[in-house]
Amino acid sequence: MELTAIGTVESPLTDRAQAPKQGREGSPEAWLVFEDRFAEALDGIAAGDDVLVFTWLHRANREVLRVHPRDDVSNPEQGVFNTRSSDRPNPIGLHRVHVLELDGPRLRVADLEAIDGTPVIDVKPVLDGPER
Amino acid sequence: MELTAIGTVESPLTDRAQAPKQGREGSPEAWLVFEDRFAEALDGIAAGDDVLVFTWLHRANREVLRVHPRDDVSNPEQGVFNTRSSDRPNPIGLHRVHVLELDGPRLRVADLEAIDGTPVIDVKPVLDGPER
Repeated sequence: MELTAIGTVESPLTDRAQAPKQGREGSPEAWLVFEDRFAEALDGIAAGDDVLVFTWLHRANREVLRVHPRDDVSNPEQGVFNTRSSDRPNPIGLHRVHVLELDGPRLRVADLEAIDGTPVIDVKPVLDGPER
Repeated sequence: MELTAIGTVESPLTDRAQAPKQGREGSPEAWLVFEDRFAEALDGIAAGDDVLVFTWLHRANREVLRVHPRDDVSNPEQGVFNTRSSDRPNPIGLHRVHVLELDGPRLRVADLEAIDGTPVIDVKPVLDGPER
């Protein structure tokens, strides 16, 4: 099962340790820069939409199975599948972001905590129902 | 970027064409069967929880960039990133499921529309906030 990068995050965030833990915890605006060959797969996405962005957290440690949530040792250790830790067997990041602007195969977004250079692997719409 | 299967779906659903489009649209109960080496990464997940399950939709067509949503030709064609189509460059499935039972490295769940044999690649908690 081999993933293809469909694009890349361009963000002022460059240091994983300084990135917010979640998107709405102080993330700067960022760009999602898609490869030209995937531009038509964006058709229908508009400024004002909230979308789910999937990333590959390339700096993660894939051997980690248990963590203290939010890197706080006062939080009891949990299995990584019960946390949003980026350290996990398949370091897929899930980010709900707000689309501010479209510019060809580029989307300017709010609320993205991923660092500069993070590969983007998928985008999906937010559903109105419970499946999010 | 190489994914590792952390487990597999066991479901009465065997035919992609007959599977519901979304989990709450009539999915039967299913089991998520994790590999033993990942069992400790489940620590903290309990019956009654809703969790996000990520799958690899192994029957998908990765060349598709535009679709009629829900396979209905009366719906105007959209880019796949504006739909939940399983046909997409990286066929990652996102499923919000309800945990009914834990049995060692197995979880019995409601609301999963993935077919039998689908690889599981990640599990994350649902967050109370907006990032889901």
